[in-house]
This record gives sequence, C-alpha cells and structure tokens, in this order.
Amino acid sequence: MTEDLGQNYARAGYHTPQVRGTRPALLLVDFAQAYFDPASPLFGAEGCAAARDNAARLLATARATGTPVIYSEVRYVQGGADGGVFFRKAPPLKVFEKGNPLGDITPALAPRDNEIVITKQYPSAFFGTSLAATLTAMRVDCVLLTGLTTSGCVRATCVDAMSHGFVTLVVADACGDRAEAPHQANLFDMSAKYADLLSTSEAAAYLTTTKRE
Amino acid sequence: MTEDLGQNYARAGYHTPQVRGTRPALLLVDFAQAYFDPASPLFGAEGCAAARDNAARLLATARATGTPVIYSEVRYVQGGADGGVFFRKAPPLKVFEKGNPLGDITPALAPRDNEIVITKQYPSAFFGTSLAATLTAMRVDCVLLTGLTTSGCVRATCVDAMSHGFVTLVVADACGDRAEAPHQANLFDMSAKYADLLSTSEAAAYLTTTKRE
Amino acid sequence: MTEDLGQNYARAGYHTPQVRGTRPALLLVDFAQAYFDPASPLFGAEGCAAARDNAARLLATARATGTPVIYSEVRYVQGGADGGVFFRKAPPLKVFEKGNPLGDITPALAPRDNEIVITKQYPSAFFGTSLAATLTAMRVDCVLLTGLTTSGCVRATCVDAMSHGFVTLVVADACGDRAEAPHQANLFDMSAKYADLLSTSEAAAYLTTTKRE
Amino acid sequence: MTEDLGQNYARAGYHTPQVRGTRPALLLVDFAQAYFDPASPLFGAEGCAAARDNAARLLATARATGTPVIYSEVRYVQGGADGGVFFRKAPPLKVFEKGNPLGDITPALAPRDNEIVITKQYPSAFFGTSLAATLTAMRVDCVLLTGLTTSGCVRATCVDAMSHGFVTLVVADACGDRAEAPHQANLFDMSAKYADLLSTSEAAAYLTTTKRE
Repeated sequence: MTEDLGQNYARAGYHTPQVRGTRPALLLVDFAQAYFDPASPLFGAEGCAAARDNAARLLATARATGTPVIYSEVRYVQGGADGGVFFRKAPPLKVFEKGNPLGDITPALAPRDNEIVITKQYPSAFFGTSLAATLTAMRVDCVLLTGLTTSGCVRATCVDAMSHGFVTLVVADACGDRAEAPHQANLFDMSAKYADLLSTSEAAAYLTTTKRE
Repeated sequence: MTEDLGQNYARAGYHTPQVRGTRPALLLVDFAQAYFDPASPLFGAEGCAAARDNAARLLATARATGTPVIYSEVRYVQGGADGGVFFRKAPPLKVFEKGNPLGDITPALAPRDNEIVITKQYPSAFFGTSLAATLTAMRVDCVLLTGLTTSGCVRATCVDAMSHGFVTLVVADACGDRAEAPHQANLFDMSAKYADLLSTSEAAAYLTTTKRE
Repeated sequence: MTEDLGQNYARAGYHTPQVRGTRPALLLVDFAQAYFDPASPLFGAEGCAAARDNAARLLATARATGTPVIYSEVRYVQGGADGGVFFRKAPPLKVFEKGNPLGDITPALAPRDNEIVITKQYPSAFFGTSLAATLTAMRVDCVLLTGLTTSGCVRATCVDAMSHGFVTLVVADACGDRAEAPHQANLFDMSAKYADLLSTSEAAAYLTTTKRE
Repeated sequence: MTEDLGQNYARAGYHTPQVRGTRPALLLVDFAQAYFDPASPLFGAEGCAAARDNAARLLATARATGTPVIYSEVRYVQGGADGGVFFRKAPPLKVFEKGNPLGDITPALAPRDNEIVITKQYPSAFFGTSLAATLTAMRVDCVLLTGLTTSGCVRATCVDAMSHGFVTLVVADACGDRAEAPHQANLFDMSAKYADLLSTSEAAAYLTTTKRE
C-alpha cells in the first residue's frame, strides 16, 4: 500500500543512467593503513578489505589501459591546525598526523612514482586540492570512483566530482565502510542524483573497451 | 551480541559535540516552491512542510537577534547549460529553469531586500558561489543549517560549511526530505563526522543567549 | 649595457607560446555600462571603447562558428554585504549595486537568452561562481579572454582560467583599461607566465579554422 | 596638462585604506632557494634577497607575538602532471619538481615543525589548497602578505586573500621580483583595489600593538 523508497525516487526521475565519458580517470580515495589495522579507531573490517581487493584489480586494468590513476591521502601537521573544524569534530582523524604510518596508503595499492597522490585535509578529494584542475588539464571527462569510506570521503568526493563537471561512476564493490547500513544508504543517495553505480568487473570492461578520443 | 551502529561509531570517537561559535549565521537552503507543490516532481509532503514551519520560527528569532540570514535558491538557464553534469543526471532539476515559479522561495520564508540570496547550480550552497567569502568577511564562525533536502543539498552544504572552517549545527527538524529513511541516514552521517544536531527550539535558544563578540 | 625586461624574462624561458585547444569558448568579462558612461567613476574612455568594438567583432565570429559564449557581470545587494572585503576596499564598486543600470552589460554586447551570464562579486570570473564547472562539463579546453579591465578583472580571470586547467588566450585589443600603463604592464605579466596574447583578427581566424573534436 | 596615473585612480576612489583586522596571520609565499641561487632560471638578485631579509625580521616579530605563520612552497611530480597548464606554459617551473633542492624554502626562513607549510601548484597560495579553510577555522581576519614574486605568486595570492574575505596588507619591502618595473606595477595594482601597502617596520609595529580579540 505505501510506496517504497525505490518507487518514490523513480517517480521523480532519479537514478537516471548517464552517458559515460571517453576519457576516464581512476580515483582511489584514502586507502590508508588506518582502515586495515585492527588497532586503529578507523578499522573497517571486511567491508574495507573487499573494497581494497577490488580496487587492486581495477588498478591493474587502469595501468594496463593507460588510464590516468590518482590517489588521495589525508595528512595533518601535529596538532591538526591545518585540519580546521574537521580535525576538531572527528577525533579519529588524529591517526593522520604526519609521521603516523596509519596514514600511509596500503601496500596493496602502492602508488608508482609517476602517479599523482593528492594530499587532502577534508572529506572531499577535491576540497582544498588541485585535483579538479589536474583532471581538467588532462581533459578527463569521467571519474571512476573507488575508496574508503562510502559514507564519508567517497560520498563527499562524488558530490564534488560531479559538481566540477565530471561524469562520475561509483565502483560500488570497490568502496567500503565500517558498517553496512551507511554504505548502502550512501550508494543509494549517490545513485539517485550524482553518479551511476557499477561493479569492478563492469568498470574494468569499460576501461578496456573505451576508445579514448 | 552484534554491535549496533551507535556502538560501532562511538567506539571510534564519532558524534563528538563541538564548541559552538559566538558569531552565528542562519542558512536556509533551497526552500523552493518545488518542494511544496503536489504537482512538482520534487514534492516532499509532510517532511518538507514541517521543516519549513520550523525554519520560519527560527528565521523570526534570527531577525530579532540580529543574526545574519542567508538563503539559497537554484536557477539554471533554459536547457541547463550552466547546470553541467548535475542537470543531466537529475531530470527533476528542470523545474529550476529560469522563469519557473517552482524555483521561487516559498512565501513563508520570503527574503527581505537587505538579506542575501545565493543563487547556486549544484547541491552545496558553497559550490560555485561566494557564500564562504561572504561568511568569512562577516567574521561568522558558526552556521545554523536548515533546508531541503536533508539527503541532498543540506548534506552537501553541511560538508562544505564544515570544510570551509565554520562550526556547523544542523537544525534537524528544520530540514526535510521526500522520505524518512534518507532523512535519518543523512542526519546520522552528518552528526558522526561533520556537524552537531539540534532542534529548532535549541537553535533559537542558542541565538537568543549567544553574546556576539 | 643593462639587460632590458624582455631579455631578462626570455633568459628564464618566459613568454613561451602554448599549444592551443580544440574546443574553445569565448569569455566576455564585465563589459558593463559603468565603463562607457563618462559620469561613472569607472569610465574608461578610448581604451574601453576600442575593446568593446573588437569584442563585438569576435562575438559575431563566435556565434557564427558555434563557439560557446559566456559573459560575466558584477552585482551586489544594496550595501554590498555580499561583496565582502572587495566592496569595502574599492568604493567605485558601489555602481554595481542591484538596480543600477551602470551594472548592465553594454547593448553592443547584449547576451542572447540561451547564453550564460555569470554573476560575480570578485575580480575573477571564476571566483565564487560555477564558471569552471560549466566549462569542464562542456569539455572546453581553451578560453579566449576579452573584457574590462586588463589590470583588474581580466588579469584575475586569466590567472584563474589557467589555474583551472584551460589554455588561456588573451585577446589583447579586446581588453581595455582606464590607463595605458596598467594595461601594458598586465599584458606583459599575463604573457610571461599565464597566457598567450593575440589580436582580435588572430582570434577570429582561430575560431574559424579550429576543427572541434 | 594630462592627468597622471595617481590622479586618474584617485578620481575613481581607488587606493582607499582599509580598517585592519584584529586577528592577523603572516603569510610567506614561495621563499624558495630557486630565487636565491644564481644558477637558477628564477634567480631574482637583489630584489629577492632584500625581501627575504625583511621577511626574516617580520617572521621573528610574528613568532614573538604569537601571530600564526603560514608558508607556501611549490612542488610537482616528475613531469609536472599535477601542474596542468601552468607547468606547460612556464618552463622555469621545472625547478619545482620533487627532489630538486631549489624548491626548498630558504634556510633564512626555515619553518618550525608546528608551523603550516602549504604545498601549491599554481600562482595563488589559495588555489587548490586548504589555506582559506585553515585561516577561517583559526578566525584570522587579516593577512600580512610577503613573498616572491610580486608580479607572480604574491599578486595572485593577494587577489585571492582579499576575495576569500581577509583584509590584506602587502608588506611591500618584504616582496621581491626579478625586475623593478613589474614589482612596482603590481604594487600599484594591488594598492589600488585589493590591499593596503605597508613597510616591514609598519607591519612589525602592527603585530606588536594589535590586541587580539
């Protein structure tokens, strides 16, 4: 009798698939050791480990197809003065103070020397960074988004990627969170208005078959 | 036996209350007719109407206490060329093309001549607008956030308000959405990492008792 | 005996010409009545009138070749609360308060209904606006820059256009200023590090012969 | 008979002094070794050395008075992929590739561990960085600007500092350039519309006598 959430949103025209771009880039958001170490307050258990493994598969495809790859990491000075309000509101961010190995990117996704690592202080990989300028200067038109966590930095990065003018594709099984409910709720919101969802396998096929202009 | 979501997040140190600022501003995000007209694809029913009524109460308090008040509205040229990827992904945004009265702010919250209305094209009221510059130049240090919808423009504005350096307080019952589940899920996410939640009554009391420096 | 300025800069490798893009847009910055009315504090005399006439020629070519055209204008609420520090520092900006016809774009360059007009509050047409997002979503890769004044809003817009990732071409004789010295000094600076200079005729030829990808 | 530049600008109301803030920060832009090494393409000779010495005096005062101090440096990955259009347009920027000691801040102005160093890729220290967020979160209302070069990164940073809502004071003798003409022309432009000029001695007196709120 009562409308379900899917019907409610479909009635408005949400969840519409987009035309994908022809010059994609792969974005790996915050795959830090902090999410994989059980002693870390940010430890994300199975959800994050599965995302990492899927992202590693997609990374290999991206490198093999010459797709630009960009990573983000979070870093603060000791005390977090460059973390502003965020650092004060979210105590677990302390693990990202400079020198703490929990802030390093997991070895499974180690950046190569010529690959760009964006250092950020806020949830979005675009906020307070030159990421949008880099993508525009590369003439990228489509962002494949992976990372941790779905309800945090992935969601914020998704909203900004789309706002900056990039068709955004969220690789759902290459994103993870500390709990399933926020993961699912945020995939739903992103799919409704900002991005299309796809799997790692679909994303790899897209990279393999895309003819870059 | 299994940990619930609240315990999971508390363990990490999320949902920590902040020290509030002493120079607040009230932000009213996208209280457009489109959310109150049953014929509109964006119609939000009771959730949005209640948010509007609470926001109206808070607006009266803000004006009475000399608190700066800033509104946002969404507007696009015909065809949405200035709406970029967002306009293409989310078909209901068509109601915000110039000249459509659904894009007007509801009369219950009509801006006064000397109050600032930010015209935006993207979810966040900060993205592609001079809102952060205006607040900084006014020396505002704390944003009271109200608006529509919780899972869309309120969430995006919250992340950006916090990122730009403003302590952010989300007035939960002055925010609304087209469905209850996304409303609650997004309040949870915002409370965890970005903002403190409070009620309209608490927000009014804060404005009344704050001694502006 | 002493090195002149040109030699000094050439020695460092400045003034290097760029590879032009294949998807240009024409940008017309702040061609407001305020620069053409002798009673206005911003009156720019011959320099501004010549720039307007050249911009009009280039605008006709842009429209004929299907090149996207974007205008900027400056507008503030009465009292300039949305103009922040800039409005307080520069008293002539008062002519851009809402309702003052000096803020209108000159009829010689009147925008068409489907053309985008960016409303801005600060020198750069990119600052606090969605211009970069619009250009990226259109896949523009090259900005042809015209406007008033060379030492003010054109210079600021040039730095930002280049920073955002767009190859920037300044149409020198379609930019004007209230005095010749700042006009020339700023063309020199822009040419050295940020943009290539060209004439209206060269710009028109570029638009006519560019094969858009 | 003909009006000089000063009269021309005064007639419009430019060069108006501002009310200074009560919570200043000191900004040191790009005092890199590249400007002090005669073998570097960016070598700036006496102009840059004098700026450095004045900045060092002001830095000591800032530290003694508890004024926040923020530095900027420029860094690119090998090949400059994160330098976008700027790196391609300006060949001397190659000295800022990672690992080149010319990119290090001069020892005369070495940052302390708890002081923030902004890493940037573009002329403005605000572009693509979290500097504005940091200053806003610190409730800074006034920026004392020093650095290299006046016609480049200082000018771009000045426009952005002012646009972001900070009263901007350019310490003229703590800014330097590779040639005197661009140095003077850009001080003139900044003074006209964006910032007040003052000397190192005046700036030090301001820091010493300001009562922070």
